Amino acid sequence: MKKQSRRAFLTGTSLLALGATTSSFASPVATAPLIHHVFFWLKNPSSKEDLEKLIEGIRSLQKIETVQEFRIGQPAKTPKRNVIDDSYAVSLFTTFTNVAAHDVYQEHAVHKKFIADYSHLWAKVQVYDSMDI
Amino acid sequence: MKKQSRRAFLTGTSLLALGATTSSFASPVATAPLIHHVFFWLKNPSSKEDLEKLIEGIRSLQKIETVQEFRIGQPAKTPKRNVIDDSYAVSLFTTFTNVAAHDVYQEHAVHKKFIADYSHLWAKVQVYDSMDI
Repeated sequence: MKKQSRRAFLTGTSLLALGATTSSFASPVATAPLIHHVFFWLKNPSSKEDLEKLIEGIRSLQKIETVQEFRIGQPAKTPKRNVIDDSYAVSLFTTFTNVAAHDVYQEHAVHKKFIADYSHLWAKVQVYDSMDI
Repeated sequence: MKKQSRRAFLTGTSLLALGATTSSFASPVATAPLIHHVFFWLKNPSSKEDLEKLIEGIRSLQKIETVQEFRIGQPAKTPKRNVIDDSYAVSLFTTFTNVAAHDVYQEHAVHKKFIADYSHLWAKVQVYDSMDI
């Protein structure tokens, strides 16, 4: 499927050949170029309960209509290197179609409730917003 | 191959009701849970030439076979907030199916050549590796 869509991309010709596989063109990668990547450090890094609570809170954000991709992560077990920061407890990766869609998310009641209900759990938040080039 | 794995994924339960919307199962989000997100700060932040060179170098990494999603970004123009770090020059977002695939990327000749040819351009690199939960 990936091969087909790539070929169509390259030829720039009739996409009919793709048939049902045109789905890849609707993938969030193509349509949501704004990455909003958030890293959370817990106040009590050793508390599994706090971690689970925070994850539960983060999950609630998926309901916000302007969210495209939505992924929750924890430090991967890649080999340790000086350039890697694996000290965070949990991360949230979301994408948006543009800055306005991101702003809707930030101002959304669900997001405000998340901050009100769960911010006592974290010691630090670090955000990287990037726009695909 | 991707199609096959999707089918295998779906057979667990009766997802016939999904119909045409099964496309989401073929997205990289489902198949490549390891996010490798890299932020670069230039030695000469005001040099557009250095920025373009570095971006050219980053693009070369897409050739590495184990790379799934591949996105190059720059700080998005989201409203300024204390928690946002928008001081980097360029970012690289890649995903891998697992840690082994990530390690192949790190040790790949193309990656080593990238570091040899372009590392003189950057002052700092910050990496966040996360695994979807």
